[in-house]
Amino acid sequence: MSPASITRADCEALDRQDPLAALRNQFSLPEGVIYLDGNSLGPLPLTTPGRLATTLNEEWGKGLITSWNIAGWLDLPQQVGDKIARLIGAHPGEVVAADSTSINLYKTLSAALNIAAADPRRSAIVSERGNFPTDLYIAQSLCRDRGLSLRLIERDELEAALRDDVAVLMLTHVDYRTGAMHDMAAVCAQARRAGVRTIWDLAHSAGAVPVDLHAAGADFAVGCGYKYLNGGPGAPAFLWMNPSHADRIRQPLTGWWGHAAPFAFTSDYVPAAGIAGFQSGTPSILGLVALDCGLDTLLAAEPFGGMATLRRKSLALTSLFMALVQERLRGHDFAIATPADEQGRGSQVSLTREEGAWAIVQALIERGVIGDFRAGDGKHQHDILRFGFAPLYIGHADVWQAVDQLLQVMQSGQWREARFAQRRAVT
Amino acid sequence: MSPASITRADCEALDRQDPLAALRNQFSLPEGVIYLDGNSLGPLPLTTPGRLATTLNEEWGKGLITSWNIAGWLDLPQQVGDKIARLIGAHPGEVVAADSTSINLYKTLSAALNIAAADPRRSAIVSERGNFPTDLYIAQSLCRDRGLSLRLIERDELEAALRDDVAVLMLTHVDYRTGAMHDMAAVCAQARRAGVRTIWDLAHSAGAVPVDLHAAGADFAVGCGYKYLNGGPGAPAFLWMNPSHADRIRQPLTGWWGHAAPFAFTSDYVPAAGIAGFQSGTPSILGLVALDCGLDTLLAAEPFGGMATLRRKSLALTSLFMALVQERLRGHDFAIATPADEQGRGSQVSLTREEGAWAIVQALIERGVIGDFRAGDGKHQHDILRFGFAPLYIGHADVWQAVDQLLQVMQSGQWREARFAQRRAVT
Repeated sequence: MSPASITRADCEALDRQDPLAALRNQFSLPEGVIYLDGNSLGPLPLTTPGRLATTLNEEWGKGLITSWNIAGWLDLPQQVGDKIARLIGAHPGEVVAADSTSINLYKTLSAALNIAAADPRRSAIVSERGNFPTDLYIAQSLCRDRGLSLRLIERDELEAALRDDVAVLMLTHVDYRTGAMHDMAAVCAQARRAGVRTIWDLAHSAGAVPVDLHAAGADFAVGCGYKYLNGGPGAPAFLWMNPSHADRIRQPLTGWWGHAAPFAFTSDYVPAAGIAGFQSGTPSILGLVALDCGLDTLLAAEPFGGMATLRRKSLALTSLFMALVQERLRGHDFAIATPADEQGRGSQVSLTREEGAWAIVQALIERGVIGDFRAGDGKHQHDILRFGFAPLYIGHADVWQAVDQLLQVMQSGQWREARFAQRRAVT
Repeated sequence: MSPASITRADCEALDRQDPLAALRNQFSLPEGVIYLDGNSLGPLPLTTPGRLATTLNEEWGKGLITSWNIAGWLDLPQQVGDKIARLIGAHPGEVVAADSTSINLYKTLSAALNIAAADPRRSAIVSERGNFPTDLYIAQSLCRDRGLSLRLIERDELEAALRDDVAVLMLTHVDYRTGAMHDMAAVCAQARRAGVRTIWDLAHSAGAVPVDLHAAGADFAVGCGYKYLNGGPGAPAFLWMNPSHADRIRQPLTGWWGHAAPFAFTSDYVPAAGIAGFQSGTPSILGLVALDCGLDTLLAAEPFGGMATLRRKSLALTSLFMALVQERLRGHDFAIATPADEQGRGSQVSLTREEGAWAIVQALIERGVIGDFRAGDGKHQHDILRFGFAPLYIGHADVWQAVDQLLQVMQSGQWREARFAQRRAVT
């Protein structure tokens, strides 16, 4: 249907037909809030407080130290990893939940560089200029310490950049600013032909779009637990490696939890086999339990077709949002920074506007529509208004309402009010 | 009084006079359990479940992404760090809670090596052969990647080992097996004279014994949140650096949370000033809130004299335990591995026995006396039975009862029962 014909009632009808609609009941979402920032921090699953209360009162409080064995704490990093594996095209035993995305990038990038070091000509890491800053910072650190170079390119320079002096290509699958998504399989194929190892940051992909690491032939992947995986603020991150590398992995953060026999307390480090050897220190049990609950909200979609069904709904929501913005916000000077091509975007839509992006986001938040703002660099990048559409808990009527509120913010001129002028630090 | 004259009633009388006795009421401890394993996992503070429920339901559930600012999540790593600072002789702003001990060792050891690299002759790290494995594993990794050597010594070889080719001395202040404690000030003075930087692992010191990093003139310190700090399983660890190094620090795990302006999303890494630059990824808010509650249980001793008063009680408890073991367990073939000298031990007592250490610990646990077992290496190290005495929640009568139960285990021969024969992985 053409966007002009879409009414709130149409959207409500679509929601009534949505097989996934009931999955929203898994979350504690404040009354009257349309939460379009699950790409920054997913909402609270209803099960999390109870599960954590059990972990605290029963397992920690009563079981004390014995809970490492009896309550299964020892197994949590890999059990949680196995749930993540189901979302990203990995096999059981190949994913571990641990540490932060930044730390996991350091581990996987080090491991990839150690493999590539067999060919000393390969002395560069290639990434995108617009990659998430922590990815670039970690790469800068390793380049400095190893005497390598970091080459930052634009997306359309990718194929040309895969020269024979490149060791590793490190990309974020879905761009955190624009929502643009790489064709992982095509890029991996290009990289393989060029003899380049790939590392994928799935921060805005895992739980948001179907990912198939094995089909793509990726080498390494990391990702975030607190965005679309709904694991809570600062949840453990995860990492995966292609099992073909399992025998020759060397990563530098060799803490005791990644030892082949951590409780033998031997003085020489021997890495655990496979992905377990990417663990470092004692894992955060509270963080893992909360992440486990978050993952269950996604796995609840498996009877309905899992990520494929979530993806269809996500595309319907982002398409609807873009259509409504183009139709109803015409004349309010917004541009859409997210690719119109369905294959080329994740589960968010970003708008740009020359003026007022911060203030408009704040005015929307005041009206219960929570998106976020990302500053431009004053050169290549514009300020953006970012809206994430998590199909687990966002419906078509929410999209209609969000655009309606945005229209009211613009028509009323509310965003020009003084109280929206001052920017704060935001995540 | 001589140990032979000590009765359970005497111990109960001592507990009635103990000004710290009421602090035990801060914890949820199972009825009938004497918990002598707080050196491995501290018990659950009564405030933790409520505080975490608020963090979950109010801050995460209702506040969602805004809680990074409004609920103060952004400030937690340093706020929690400031509480830790009060326990280890550091100043406000000098400590940050982050990551795991293993990861923090990698950061501080890298930073210390980067400082020492000004003198290329200094190409060795010195540590103890009996240091906790993760410390040695991390040092091994950095030595391999930087072409340095790791020299492992016995405690009495320390002064001789501080030669002019040593970059860093990395020690655990209180030995995890024996409970032997270094004289931190004396060792730091020796190291300074030799031009060697010091890193102290306070895993078994923070919250267990008074530590004064500034008085000692230490260079770096790390420590664990889940032992004597009662922060819960896998709690965030912490790190400190001497502020004299603040201007020339370079650590490799340069995640966005350690950036001078993380929310500016700039593409070049600029470290935050001071200890904040040792942060890497997004911090675990659940872990930090639980650690904050754990720290409050220790700071509750400040009106009674804080760590100095806790230390007096701790020494009374460990002295009592050793005296009772020597008197009542005579003839049962135990030896005490922990120094008799008060200056030379932490807050635990370790026993050795040629046979049956694992089984005896299990039989004690069945009787509600929870200590732990650490395997020897079959060469220099014996198997040990390890008992931690946390003066916040252990009293004199508990010590009497623990020894009494140990006597019953030995007299009854219960530890020889078949069900105690099989060792499990334990932490």
